[in-house]
Amino acid sequence: MNLLHNLPDARTGEIVERLAGGNAARIERIVSHGQVSPDGFWYDQDETEFVMVLAGAARLRFADGGVSELGPGDWVDIAAHRRHRVEWTDPDQPTVWLAVFYK
Amino acid sequence: MNLLHNLPDARTGEIVERLAGGNAARIERIVSHGQVSPDGFWYDQDETEFVMVLAGAARLRFADGGVSELGPGDWVDIAAHRRHRVEWTDPDQPTVWLAVFYK
Repeated sequence: MNLLHNLPDARTGEIVERLAGGNAARIERIVSHGQVSPDGFWYDQDETEFVMVLAGAARLRFADGGVSELGPGDWVDIAAHRRHRVEWTDPDQPTVWLAVFYK
Repeated sequence: MNLLHNLPDARTGEIVERLAGGNAARIERIVSHGQVSPDGFWYDQDETEFVMVLAGAARLRFADGGVSELGPGDWVDIAAHRRHRVEWTDPDQPTVWLAVFYK
């Protein structure tokens, strides 16, 4: 199975697929295509999230002031309840994320 | 942090780095460069392993007869105690794996 071939068309909405997981971890592929978090929205999650960009480009912003510009191979490990939002994803190409939620 | 830039030289031995993890999950980058599992050796792990190839090429063989040829974006979720070995990694370029061990 390949995460980069035959990408679904995400221009009208992000596409999240659960790939694998167990009791304490969940692995997802997310395909974005220009989507951003709604104005004023912050993710505030109970689990830690390891997230990397496999293809495309994106920018995360953290409520504590941090910013992460992400391209292929870039990753960040987001502590539980570290509030963050997706500020930008490239509108001109799919952005493929691999996310691991864990405790 | 980027998993594909400034790769360590793994020609004389695989390089494993723990990137993140918690009580029930562990995320590692592995860089191989031609290494294979020793003859007759099979991994037999207590945890499930989600593993993908980010760059390079590799082949896994399973004791149950399965074979996975892996290139960039290919992944496999290996159940706990499903015995497997790395039968081949490309000797001519680094192979970068992302592995998530979880329960």
